[in-house]
Amino acid sequence: MSFSVLIMGSGSALPTVHSNQTSQIIEMGNSLFLMDCGEGTQIQLRKHKVKVQKIDHIFISHLHGDHFFGLVGLLSTMHLLGRKNELHIHGPKGLKEIVEIQFRNAGNHLSFEMLFHQTDHAGQVVYEDDKVIVTALPLKHRIPCFGYKFQEKEKPRKLKPAALEKYEIPNYARHAITLGEDFRDGEGKVIPNKKLTEDPDAPKAYAYCSDTAYYPKLQEFIQEVDLLYHEATFLESEKERAAQTFHSTAMDAATVAKEVNAKRLIVGHFSNRYKSKERFLQEGRQLFKNMDLAEEGKVFEV
Amino acid sequence: MSFSVLIMGSGSALPTVHSNQTSQIIEMGNSLFLMDCGEGTQIQLRKHKVKVQKIDHIFISHLHGDHFFGLVGLLSTMHLLGRKNELHIHGPKGLKEIVEIQFRNAGNHLSFEMLFHQTDHAGQVVYEDDKVIVTALPLKHRIPCFGYKFQEKEKPRKLKPAALEKYEIPNYARHAITLGEDFRDGEGKVIPNKKLTEDPDAPKAYAYCSDTAYYPKLQEFIQEVDLLYHEATFLESEKERAAQTFHSTAMDAATVAKEVNAKRLIVGHFSNRYKSKERFLQEGRQLFKNMDLAEEGKVFEV
Repeated sequence: MSFSVLIMGSGSALPTVHSNQTSQIIEMGNSLFLMDCGEGTQIQLRKHKVKVQKIDHIFISHLHGDHFFGLVGLLSTMHLLGRKNELHIHGPKGLKEIVEIQFRNAGNHLSFEMLFHQTDHAGQVVYEDDKVIVTALPLKHRIPCFGYKFQEKEKPRKLKPAALEKYEIPNYARHAITLGEDFRDGEGKVIPNKKLTEDPDAPKAYAYCSDTAYYPKLQEFIQEVDLLYHEATFLESEKERAAQTFHSTAMDAATVAKEVNAKRLIVGHFSNRYKSKERFLQEGRQLFKNMDLAEEGKVFEV
Repeated sequence: MSFSVLIMGSGSALPTVHSNQTSQIIEMGNSLFLMDCGEGTQIQLRKHKVKVQKIDHIFISHLHGDHFFGLVGLLSTMHLLGRKNELHIHGPKGLKEIVEIQFRNAGNHLSFEMLFHQTDHAGQVVYEDDKVIVTALPLKHRIPCFGYKFQEKEKPRKLKPAALEKYEIPNYARHAITLGEDFRDGEGKVIPNKKLTEDPDAPKAYAYCSDTAYYPKLQEFIQEVDLLYHEATFLESEKERAAQTFHSTAMDAATVAKEVNAKRLIVGHFSNRYKSKERFLQEGRQLFKNMDLAEEGKVFEV
C-alpha cells in the first residue's frame, strides 16, 4: 500500500508570501487524508494537483487559526465544484459550530453532507477501515489540541511462490493461507502455514504532532513510528519563548524522536523570525540524525 | 487629497493559483480602507506592501465566503503583530458572531479592540470624518448585500493668490475666506468672497458594487461618480446564469455606468470559466467606452 505525506505548508501563525500555514496530505492506498487546513490550503491543493474531491476525511488538530482558517473556504469550493460524497471532519469541540454558522449566514445548502466527529481524548480511534486505523494523540498546548497517528493494519502473510508450487496448493485456498491458516487437502494431509508463507512487512505508522510543548505522555502512543512529524517552532535560543507559548524547539522534537525510537523525523511549524531553517537541522541532528525539514512540496514516504 | 483604489483580487467564488478573491484597498488622504476580504487577502496585503496596521476600517459587502473568508486570518495577524489601535469592522448582521466565535475557540484575547458596526440599510452613513463620508449602497443579491460609496466631502474654496495680494488680505483671515466668508477690514471695507476665491475641485466619489444583479434602484445613489466598480461575473452568453445567481454581465455593468453617467468603470469578480478577460471589455465598451478590468495589482486614481 502506498503511504506518503505531502507537505503543503509548514509556517506557523504568520503566513507570508513564501511560507504557507500548516497542512499535509496523507496518502494511504486509495485514501487521501487532509491533516490541518491553514488559510490558503485550497490553493496549495490546486498547486500540488491534489484531487480535492478524493479527500473524504479532514483532521483538524486544534482551533488556532493557522491550522483551520482555510477549512470553510475549502468546503465551499468542494460545494461549488458539485461534490456529492459525504465528507467527514474530525476535530475538537467547537469546530462544527464555527463551520455551520458560516454556511448558515451564506444561505448555502451544501451539495454534500458534512459529518462532524469530535476528537476528545487521546487514544480515541477516530477512523478505521480494513487497512487503516487513525488514533488521536495527546499534545500539550494552550487550548485542546490533538495529534493523529495514521497506521496500517496488520497485513496478510506473504505467500512463498516456490512452496505453493511444491505442495500444489490450489488457488481457492490461498486467501485463507495469507490469513494464517494451515492448508489441509481432501485426504487430510496438512501443510503448516509457516512452510507456505513468510511474515508480512510490518505495518507502518506516521505520527503528526503539532502544536505542542515537549510532552513525555505523547511517547506512549508513538513508539517505533516509521515517520514522526513533530513541530519545532523555535531554536534553542528561544527555549523560554517555546515554553511560554506551549511550543517545541528543534531539540525537543529530536528528543521525542530519539526517545520513541522513530525511524525518521520531520520538523515544521517554523516561526517566521528565522530566515534560514538550516539551524533547525544543525541543532536537532546533534541528537537525532535522520531528521529533515518539512518543506513545502516535499513528499515523505512512510 | 490622494484618492485611489488598489485591486488585490477580482476572482469570484473559486480561487485559483492565478486569481485571488475580491479585495481592494481604498486610500483617501491618510486613511486606508479595506473593502472585502476574501481568503488570502492578508498575503495580498503583504505582496502589495500595504501597511496593515494603518487599516482602521474594514468593510464587508456580504457573507459569501469569497468576500470575507480572509477576515479572521487578517485580524489574527494584526493581533500577532501587536496591534493596539481599535479596528472598526462594518458589515451585515452575522459577521460579528462569526468572528467572535472563532477567537473565543482559539482562546485568544486580542491585543486590540474590535468594534463591529452593522450595515443594515441603503443610504446608511457608515463612516464619516472631516474629509470623507462612506455610505451603504443597495445591491440585489441572494443574501443581504451592500455596496459602499466612498466620497470626499465638499472642499474649501480655492484662494486666488493674486487677489489676496491686491487686496492685502492678512494671513489670519484666509481660513475663513476658504470657508466662503467675505473679507471685512478694520475700516468696514468689504471684499466679496468671489473676488478672492474660486470654486474648489468637485468632491470625488468612488462606488463599489459587488455582488449584484442589474439593479436600477442602485442608480439613485451613485449618480455622476468618478469611478464605479461594478461586478461583471459573466458575459452575455451566460445572461441567464447571471440572472439565476443574482450576478451581472459586463453589459449590465456598462449599462449602470452609462445610466448614472459615471466617469469611469472598472469591472471584476470574473467567473473563472473565462480564461481571457478581453471579452468583458469588448462587450461592455460597446455601451460604455471608459471601462477597464479590475486586474490584480492595478491602482486606479479616482
